[in-house]
Amino acid sequence: MIRKLSMADASFERSPGQDDDVFAANLVDQRHGGPITIGYGRYGPNQGLNEKLAVHDVMLVLEGRLSVSSGDVHVTAGPGEIVYMPKGDTVTIRAHDEGALTAYVTYPHWQEPGAA
Amino acid sequence: MIRKLSMADASFERSPGQDDDVFAANLVDQRHGGPITIGYGRYGPNQGLNEKLAVHDVMLVLEGRLSVSSGDVHVTAGPGEIVYMPKGDTVTIRAHDEGALTAYVTYPHWQEPGAA
Repeated sequence: MIRKLSMADASFERSPGQDDDVFAANLVDQRHGGPITIGYGRYGPNQGLNEKLAVHDVMLVLEGRLSVSSGDVHVTAGPGEIVYMPKGDTVTIRAHDEGALTAYVTYPHWQEPGAA
Repeated sequence: MIRKLSMADASFERSPGQDDDVFAANLVDQRHGGPITIGYGRYGPNQGLNEKLAVHDVMLVLEGRLSVSSGDVHVTAGPGEIVYMPKGDTVTIRAHDEGALTAYVTYPHWQEPGAA
């Protein structure tokens, strides 16, 4: 069944294992039986994270600006732009002064069933 | 390797099998070796399409407004909102008067390797 997703429906939680003000809210995930996770992300000003990606991750910037680095590759994305981060890459994501709001899609799910 | 995707890089083509002014531009797909397709879509004013989904499709509205119907479910999405359309559903998507720009992610790829 089709579903409409909106940031108004998002319950943000601090990204697991992160100290910075980086929050994620899954709206579609392993609980819904499909193969992909869909959610919204929120980054405080100059906040970010560093992690090795266990899944393929598509991040679309809705507001603000984010820089992403992986090895020698550095990109900066603003509203309407997308950063594609393949599984296995180690990435550093950092918001600029104004923070950022994002939407994300991952394949497969980044949260395991039963995880908090 | 991470990649930044922007509508400025999109080469829009009319959606296969459609007569309306609905255009799609894949930026990441089967050519790149991963499991997902990422692209941008463009709908003219009041233009749309009807199809049975061969893949799971996530559509995020960047500009304008779109209504999506599937069976008894009808949703309308505007900027920053997402419509999740699972594989197997038959959907009717129609832009409102101002047309629409979207970003989409599909799993698996909606274009087969070798297709036009």
